[in-house]
Amino acid sequence: MSTLVRDKLESTLRKRFFYTPSFEIYGGVSGLFDLGPPGCQLQNNVVQSWRDHFIVEENMLQIDGPMLTPYDVLNASGHVDKFTDWMCRNPKTGEYYRVDHLIEQTLKKRILNRDVDPLDRKSMEGVLATIDGFTGSDLVRTMQEYKINDPVTNDVLDAPIPFNLMFQTKIGASGQLKAFLRPETAQGQFLNFNKLLDINQGKIPFASASIGKSFRNEISPRSGLLRVREFSMAEIEHFVDPLDKSHPKFDEVSDEEVPLLSRQLQESGGSHLPVRVTIGEAVKAGIVENETLGYYMARVHQFLLRLGISRNKFRFRQHLKNEMAHYATDCWDGELLTSYGWIECIGCADRAAFDLTVHSKKTGKRLTVKQKLDTPKEETKWVLEVNKKLFGPKFKQRAKSIESALLSLPQDDLYSKHEDLNKNGKLTFQTNGETVEIDRSLVSIEMRTNLQHIREYVPNVIEPSFGLGRIIYCIFDHCFQIRPDDEERTYFSFPLSIAPTKVFVTTISNNEKFPSVIKEISQILRTREIYFKVDDSNTSIGKKYARNDELGTPFGITIDFQTLEDKTVTLRERDSMRQVRGTFEEAISVIDKMVHDPMTESTWNKSTAGFLPVAKP
Amino acid sequence: MSTLVRDKLESTLRKRFFYTPSFEIYGGVSGLFDLGPPGCQLQNNVVQSWRDHFIVEENMLQIDGPMLTPYDVLNASGHVDKFTDWMCRNPKTGEYYRVDHLIEQTLKKRILNRDVDPLDRKSMEGVLATIDGFTGSDLVRTMQEYKINDPVTNDVLDAPIPFNLMFQTKIGASGQLKAFLRPETAQGQFLNFNKLLDINQGKIPFASASIGKSFRNEISPRSGLLRVREFSMAEIEHFVDPLDKSHPKFDEVSDEEVPLLSRQLQESGGSHLPVRVTIGEAVKAGIVENETLGYYMARVHQFLLRLGISRNKFRFRQHLKNEMAHYATDCWDGELLTSYGWIECIGCADRAAFDLTVHSKKTGKRLTVKQKLDTPKEETKWVLEVNKKLFGPKFKQRAKSIESALLSLPQDDLYSKHEDLNKNGKLTFQTNGETVEIDRSLVSIEMRTNLQHIREYVPNVIEPSFGLGRIIYCIFDHCFQIRPDDEERTYFSFPLSIAPTKVFVTTISNNEKFPSVIKEISQILRTREIYFKVDDSNTSIGKKYARNDELGTPFGITIDFQTLEDKTVTLRERDSMRQVRGTFEEAISVIDKMVHDPMTESTWNKSTAGFLPVAKP
Repeated sequence: MSTLVRDKLESTLRKRFFYTPSFEIYGGVSGLFDLGPPGCQLQNNVVQSWRDHFIVEENMLQIDGPMLTPYDVLNASGHVDKFTDWMCRNPKTGEYYRVDHLIEQTLKKRILNRDVDPLDRKSMEGVLATIDGFTGSDLVRTMQEYKINDPVTNDVLDAPIPFNLMFQTKIGASGQLKAFLRPETAQGQFLNFNKLLDINQGKIPFASASIGKSFRNEISPRSGLLRVREFSMAEIEHFVDPLDKSHPKFDEVSDEEVPLLSRQLQESGGSHLPVRVTIGEAVKAGIVENETLGYYMARVHQFLLRLGISRNKFRFRQHLKNEMAHYATDCWDGELLTSYGWIECIGCADRAAFDLTVHSKKTGKRLTVKQKLDTPKEETKWVLEVNKKLFGPKFKQRAKSIESALLSLPQDDLYSKHEDLNKNGKLTFQTNGETVEIDRSLVSIEMRTNLQHIREYVPNVIEPSFGLGRIIYCIFDHCFQIRPDDEERTYFSFPLSIAPTKVFVTTISNNEKFPSVIKEISQILRTREIYFKVDDSNTSIGKKYARNDELGTPFGITIDFQTLEDKTVTLRERDSMRQVRGTFEEAISVIDKMVHDPMTESTWNKSTAGFLPVAKP
Repeated sequence: MSTLVRDKLESTLRKRFFYTPSFEIYGGVSGLFDLGPPGCQLQNNVVQSWRDHFIVEENMLQIDGPMLTPYDVLNASGHVDKFTDWMCRNPKTGEYYRVDHLIEQTLKKRILNRDVDPLDRKSMEGVLATIDGFTGSDLVRTMQEYKINDPVTNDVLDAPIPFNLMFQTKIGASGQLKAFLRPETAQGQFLNFNKLLDINQGKIPFASASIGKSFRNEISPRSGLLRVREFSMAEIEHFVDPLDKSHPKFDEVSDEEVPLLSRQLQESGGSHLPVRVTIGEAVKAGIVENETLGYYMARVHQFLLRLGISRNKFRFRQHLKNEMAHYATDCWDGELLTSYGWIECIGCADRAAFDLTVHSKKTGKRLTVKQKLDTPKEETKWVLEVNKKLFGPKFKQRAKSIESALLSLPQDDLYSKHEDLNKNGKLTFQTNGETVEIDRSLVSIEMRTNLQHIREYVPNVIEPSFGLGRIIYCIFDHCFQIRPDDEERTYFSFPLSIAPTKVFVTTISNNEKFPSVIKEISQILRTREIYFKVDDSNTSIGKKYARNDELGTPFGITIDFQTLEDKTVTLRERDSMRQVRGTFEEAISVIDKMVHDPMTESTWNKSTAGFLPVAKP
């Protein structure tokens, strides 16, 4: 899509109030947008589709938790340290730039210069191909190496610094409890793992899910709806046995063909065109790490096609080694092609046991699965025991927390602490930021061999994560159509299931006998649960059609004078603009069938086969 | 409900993971809760019911805007100054108390003392009856007058101070843009008024609506789900002509009987029992100010009954004069009776032109309706004109903002400024916090008579506002039932439309032939779009029934050995525990009819008339 067409798209979206900058009469705040009525309705439909496709179909356990999240939780999860972008400031204008975007933008421009040295071009292309995996110091070095200045004023910029992207606030009257607005919905699912496992009757695998808003204090948000500070997302956490990542329903999707841009393909240079393979083959060949990850990738692909995403504007791009979190086993971004380039809308990651482990460590609460073993297993391990009689009096109110910290020491630590006790008669360890010394009378550490009847393990997590707001923008982009014979006439070819309104009802003129007919038809539509709007504006029928095309309304029912005689109406289809004539009942039945039976793939031609054709006006 | 029963209710809710304190493994944060799977599903159903009952049925224009809201917007709306509670601190313990709650709690206790002087009791009762309308200084005075100390330690408390209840944060890299988390969803609707009017083709009345989370930094939240810091709400802004607050569909609801506790009834002392009248009579008698407000009160009443709220645990309480905002014309709280007393869950207010006026004033943007007059009207008014030639050079870049401030002066001001110009040759006025002096050469003010073809007015706003989280808690409270013959067995009598799961499918034992039958039945349920769960836990059938009763699942289908022979199953109903036997198809048809045809009010007895009875186990 050209930027010219993009301008037309965005002006249509604004004109029909799909969205608007928030607080516009106050000058607006960049990165914040309101969805207006049609945008809101479309969002409702996308959320409903997501819920049906994932939560209902897969029997997931949904959780709805708060956005306010205390510091400790996001410190343990790594967000306090790592949820940052690097920025730099123009000391003269006070303008801030996000460093990776600034480098990309500048180098892309320089490469276009014909006079650039071929070696330089090659090195700049190298930066652009790998920048997604750059660390902070890589960015700092690149800024210096390429002498990158302010793109507008050419001023020299301050040195880059990291900026944490979480919005900060404080909870409570005393203002002591530091908190953030969540950057993702996942943490609430990890923290509730034990309760989820419990209501799933202790069985694994299972998946939980959350839908809601998350926040990201973008440094300088541009690109409209694609880079926002508050956004709708949906996340699944699928908990599996680390020794068995197969999926019971994998066979049902193994033939699904998905476009994969593997790590290997990216590193080989070349066209960056994804390769289409069945997910079955991809898992078999080890391109996708395991069945569960593959299952979700196939299900994501199905979901996007259902929403009207173009098959050839989608790819799964595998994370580069240095781009992936250290704990992750495999990670694929679902990317959609728009006029802004390829946009990351979905992430599918195998996060191993990272999340449950960090929260368990921080809180001293076990987040594990206990599996009864059919044949008991001998296990030798270090065991620490506390001398309760002496421990309490010595540490008083700290006793409990020190004890629980001791008891959660990993095996490796226990071995070295055991050595310390033997050598020095005491051990020291860190808890809550202080160093505690414990002597031989207070604890014992020894190796024991037991017969294990239970296997206890921390499950792994496969996480498909969806940026719903971005997906919605891509739906707008992919469904935007211009009539071949008149470039001023545009429409959205939304699939029936997500179109904001399914049918509009209108009249050929303002005759006083029409309102009662509108009422009668509305009644039938309401009974059939077909979401409709009445367009009783005082304008020509052509303009009404054009407006409802711009709203992406698939069907129109027009009442005219013949209707008063024989109860027939004109039924119009949005994409083809074809019109046919039939009774109320016939027209509504066509819509009903097409709206409510997507599985049978009722088509316009099939459904209207018996109707009288109407000449175009 | 006794507090004993309340404990039972809340422990059932926790056990079945309807909700849980958020971040519990980190010690929790008071006033923040997670909804678990059944709670989440119930919330989805309540939101869907709300959307159907209000947005779809009334053709409202839905908006979804951000929670992050800039300072200026909430300053104009009055929240920066007035969205406060008074609190006081125990200087010894550091504990904070919300003053009005502290007074209520203390006086309620003192009144119970038998030895209290009858006159004192009378005066304390007076405080309790009117405290909802107390100003800050009323609260300070009452604390002193009744010598109220810390309820736990009896320490003397610091003097009360106001505390703003909005969570504060900052937007952007520079940290310059101060913002709050919205305390309500309404502002986004007011700010978009012009766009909403435009897509409604300039016609009025119309209503907009928003559903989403809002925030309130409670001083010391207790009472579980009823007083939380982050909550789901739904708000309607119905825009009307201030000269005509009739409602086109009022006739459809005028016979609805609603329980009204009017201002007059409250002020007369006495029982505080609401009076049941039809909304038609209430509006006619002037108890409810206008038809539109009355229309919504009736619709609210219908909505609550649909959700399973008990008819006799609901009332509309009218705001006292001193409790109501100064601009409001009339205001009724929808209150629900729980074990915590009467809880405000809904507000229905006529806010007059307040909101649109303040935002218009602050931004200089007109938020008005222009109505073409059939017969033009003569209008005489003061008109100010600016001498553009001199104005620009004199005020330079401030010229535009000073001019727009001058042009928006109200008629009364123009009259007095006109006098000033005549007398002193100059006028002075305030804008942006500075005083500007303007002499006779720069402006003229004179009275003119024009023929008006257009009437321009600021619409009034009727606002029904719903605390969905509180309503959900009241549904739990009102639907909680204890079996008469066994007080350990409890269930939720949720209406079908909001029950989290409609039917569970289970088996009498773990026979290997059963799973394929479960699959077959699941397939049929899925096709009929009936939300179900399979309970394949390894426990007795009695325990499965008990668990699903606690989840409020209306129906159970049990597969047994006879099923393998003749494809019949047992169908069980939650409230009556009655069981009947029929084929798959028959059993599912009963559920389908009852779930999907709430209008026809299919009842269990009617629907299962032809079935074979089953003896209770």
